[in-house]
Order: sequence, then C-alpha cells, then structure tokens
Amino acid sequence: MELIDGKKISLQLQSEIAEEVKTIVSKGGKQPHLAAVLVGNDGGSETYVAAKIKACENVGFKSTFIRHTSEVTEAELLATVVKLNNDKDIDGYIVQMPLPKHIDEQKIIKAVDPAKDVDGFHPVNVGRMVLSLPSYISATPNGIVELIKRYKIETSGKHCVVIGRSNIVGSPMSILMAKNNAFANCTVTICHSKTKDISFFTKQADIIICALGKPEFLTADMVKQGAVVIDVGTTRVTSTETKSGFKLKGDVKFDEVAPKCSFITPVPGGVGPMTIASLLSNTLLASKKVIYK
Amino acid sequence: MELIDGKKISLQLQSEIAEEVKTIVSKGGKQPHLAAVLVGNDGGSETYVAAKIKACENVGFKSTFIRHTSEVTEAELLATVVKLNNDKDIDGYIVQMPLPKHIDEQKIIKAVDPAKDVDGFHPVNVGRMVLSLPSYISATPNGIVELIKRYKIETSGKHCVVIGRSNIVGSPMSILMAKNNAFANCTVTICHSKTKDISFFTKQADIIICALGKPEFLTADMVKQGAVVIDVGTTRVTSTETKSGFKLKGDVKFDEVAPKCSFITPVPGGVGPMTIASLLSNTLLASKKVIYK
Repeated sequence: MELIDGKKISLQLQSEIAEEVKTIVSKGGKQPHLAAVLVGNDGGSETYVAAKIKACENVGFKSTFIRHTSEVTEAELLATVVKLNNDKDIDGYIVQMPLPKHIDEQKIIKAVDPAKDVDGFHPVNVGRMVLSLPSYISATPNGIVELIKRYKIETSGKHCVVIGRSNIVGSPMSILMAKNNAFANCTVTICHSKTKDISFFTKQADIIICALGKPEFLTADMVKQGAVVIDVGTTRVTSTETKSGFKLKGDVKFDEVAPKCSFITPVPGGVGPMTIASLLSNTLLASKKVIYK
Repeated sequence: MELIDGKKISLQLQSEIAEEVKTIVSKGGKQPHLAAVLVGNDGGSETYVAAKIKACENVGFKSTFIRHTSEVTEAELLATVVKLNNDKDIDGYIVQMPLPKHIDEQKIIKAVDPAKDVDGFHPVNVGRMVLSLPSYISATPNGIVELIKRYKIETSGKHCVVIGRSNIVGSPMSILMAKNNAFANCTVTICHSKTKDISFFTKQADIIICALGKPEFLTADMVKQGAVVIDVGTTRVTSTETKSGFKLKGDVKFDEVAPKCSFITPVPGGVGPMTIASLLSNTLLASKKVIYK
C-alpha cells in the first residue's frame, strides 16, 4: 500500500509554479495576479481565503483581497464582479462560496468573465471541459487528476467508481475519468443516493473516488484487494483527541480500507491540500493566456 | 416486449408543437423562426436540412435556408453566424455539421449566440446542462429522454450502461441519466473503446444505450432478461433487399436481442425520428425565451 501524499505533491507543484513565476518576471513578463472576494465572515470561508492569499505570496503572485459584509446586495456584488472583469491587471479571481441566501450564486458565477474564472465554475468552462476543449478545471477534480498523474496510477481500461454526483466533485470526476487521454480512459460508474447497492459497484472497482460527505462510509468489505481509493470527504466531527475539539473525517474508514489498497489518500493530507495548488495553477494559466487568448 | 415507436412519438410531439404555435400566433404572438445553414452539398447533410425545413413548415414555423458552397471561407461563414445572431426575427438556427476541413467547427459553434443555439452544441449550453441549469439539450439526447418519458420507463435506481463517449450522444446521455430528476436517477456506467469487457457491464444493465456506430454490436448474450435497449446506431450498409442498395443498421442485433427486452427501439424508426422533434422543441423554447430571457 502506498500513501498518496497530497501535502507533498501540493508543495512540489507550488514550488514549480514559484520557479516559473520567477523566470517569467525576470524576463520582464507579467506577475500573475489573483483576486479573492469574501462575503460575510463565515469561519471556514475566512480560513480558505486566507490560505489562498498566503499561497499567492509563497509562489510570487500578486493578490488582492476584497471583503464585503454579509449585508452586501446582489447588485453591489455584481458591480465588484464587473470591476474585476474589467481590471486589466487581474488575471483571475474567485468569489468564495457559499454566498448569503439573498444572493443568487449562479447569477454571480455567470457574471464572471470565463477567462478569469480560475475556479472553473462558469458554465462555459464546465462545457469546455466536457467537450475536451481547453478550460479551467475546478480545484478538487483538477487536484485529483494531478495526484493520479504524479503517482503514475494506471487508469486506462480500469473500472472507476465515483460515489457522489455533486457539481463540484462527483459529476466532473465521472466525466474526466472517462475521457480519451493518458490519465483517464476508465470505464466509469457514477453512484449516488438513488443507487440501490453501492457496494455492488465498489467491489468491482479498480479505482474508487469517494465524494459523498458521509464519514467512514466506505468500509473494507466494499473494496477489492489492490484498489486505488481517493477520499474526497471532509466532514468535521467532534473529537476529544484534538485541542480544537474537532477532527476532519474522510468518507473512507481508513484503518481497515488502507491495507487492501494499492494507493490511498489520507484525510487530512490527501486531496484537500491539492485544491490550493490547482487554483494557483489555473491562475498561472490565466496570466499566460493559455486557455483564452 | 414493447417496441418504442420513435416515429409515432415524434409526430405526436410535432402535432403538440403545431397546436401551441397556432395558439401563440392566434393571440398575436411571434411565429417561431428557425434558420438552417448548409455548407457544400454532402448528400446526407442535404437530406437532413431539407427534412428540418419541411418539419418547420409542418408545425407552422417560419424557416430560412442559407446555403454556402464548400469553398466558403471561415470568415465568410462567421459573418453569416454574426448576421443570424443579430437578426431579431430569427429565434434559433443550426449550422449543419460536418463542415469542410478548412473550417474550424468549434470556432463556428462558439460564435453562435447561446440563446439561439438550438442544436445545444455551444459550450455554455453543454455546461448549463451539466450544472442542471436551463439549457438547450442537443437533439439525440433530448429525443432519448423524451422517449423514456413518453413510455414511462422506470429509471430511478436502475443501472444504465451507456456505450460510446461521443460529445453528441454518449457523454451527454451518461450525464443526463445520472441526474437527480424523475426521468433519470440511474446509476450510470459509461463504456467505450478502452473498456476491457463491455459485456461484463451490459449484462448487469437494466437500461442499455448503445451509441458506438458498430452495426449489430450488441448481441443477445450481452443483455439481461427484461432490459430496456435504446439503439442510437445508424450505419449505412449495402443491401440487396432495398431499391437504394443500402440499409440502415443499428448497433443492436435486433432480431435476437428484442425478445429479451422489456422495451427496445428499432432502427430505423426509433431514436432517429426524435431528433427533428427535439430541434423543433428547442426552437419553440427559443422563441418563447424560456431558457434565455
């Protein structure tokens, strides 16, 4: 069993990005610039945005942080989006989700210039991904594909079972793993809440991507010997073992599943850390105008 | 075994559309208007476009036919697209594919105003479909979903195996069948040329959607008793039985598979006739500004 070390790969990616930025800037090129918009003061969102800004500094990006109170109107937030679309120095930006209930998230997402949509949430980028056209792929799916690449996990002709059909993980992963390229070419099954017997499918799987958000859902009896298991779940559960009083739990019962696996991602330290590297990587692509000219 | 009569359903849909158009026009509303662009004089494309124009007449749509020779430049074709985008009377239009090799099909598709993209090929419409936002769904997938609805085929919790991963059929069908709605909610497996043993998956399937374009690929031994089989294949094979000297063959070995099925589509007369109804239905949506305001 080999542990997939997302933390290590993420840092490796970030140092590669930092190198490239150094070269670009030393040749007089443009320093990549990411903006992050935060609405309200949800603890989780604060932490995520702070981590993204910090990561920008680490790799030599310029960053801009825009904060709105949770009372911001949809029109005001849209005005910020338009301003960011028009700001020539900003290569890409994110509007941290979730947004307060009085704001239509899809309306905001659709207002983002697809060329600056480094979160890959805009329908144009989702559609381009499906059609195998160049696009920004959203952070988690992008991170998972990168882990598969870096660990040289064999995928062609393998049966990949994706659990969960969310717009941000399950659905795009099922699409990406079935594509005709060297890091995909899987036969893909997508399972979800309406699947009658998920274990029937997971037992057949060479690769399992678990993204349903149910702590310790995937148990050893559901997994074939030698399977690759990617755990996307991150549920906060209360714990007496940590100072904070909580612990991050994955969708996989790690202790019993790991011994059966050829590769497995831990939680924390697996897929999670990859999301920041994905965002930086998309921002670099935006700055270099690789996807949109 | 019940035969799914696509021809009958398509005519039924068209008569429903005709009724609605009559009502709209009698109330002083706008008559829907579809334009079709044909480049060159490929026999197949000529036939398809002629059938679409004819269908417009039948349901009371206005139609415009624009023809370019196969020598048309990409810039000239783009100019036509821009003209159609700006023409207020035209609700939707199609550029018949395939295009001559010197023209970048994706460039043309991306230039079409998504609000008039009644073929559902624009990345925005593909992305919106994936994200479950209102969108034009392309003709063949739309037609298959309609057949499932009209024949009240049970889908929730069923295992649907899609064979083929093309952008126009396999890939969108795998996405649509996994969605959380009354005509989907399937566990979906997508198989393709890199799948090691397709019969391993089809034997498990409650619903098989066959879209690989290999005549008589699906044989009786690959199908479970009581399965629903949707045949999207239409390959022209030479035949001594017909005047024309050719015959349309599906991907399913109909004679031996049909007796095992609960429902099956024939070729011809199954999925094929539905595509025209889908196009008309999208054009009506465009005219009523249901998807884009």
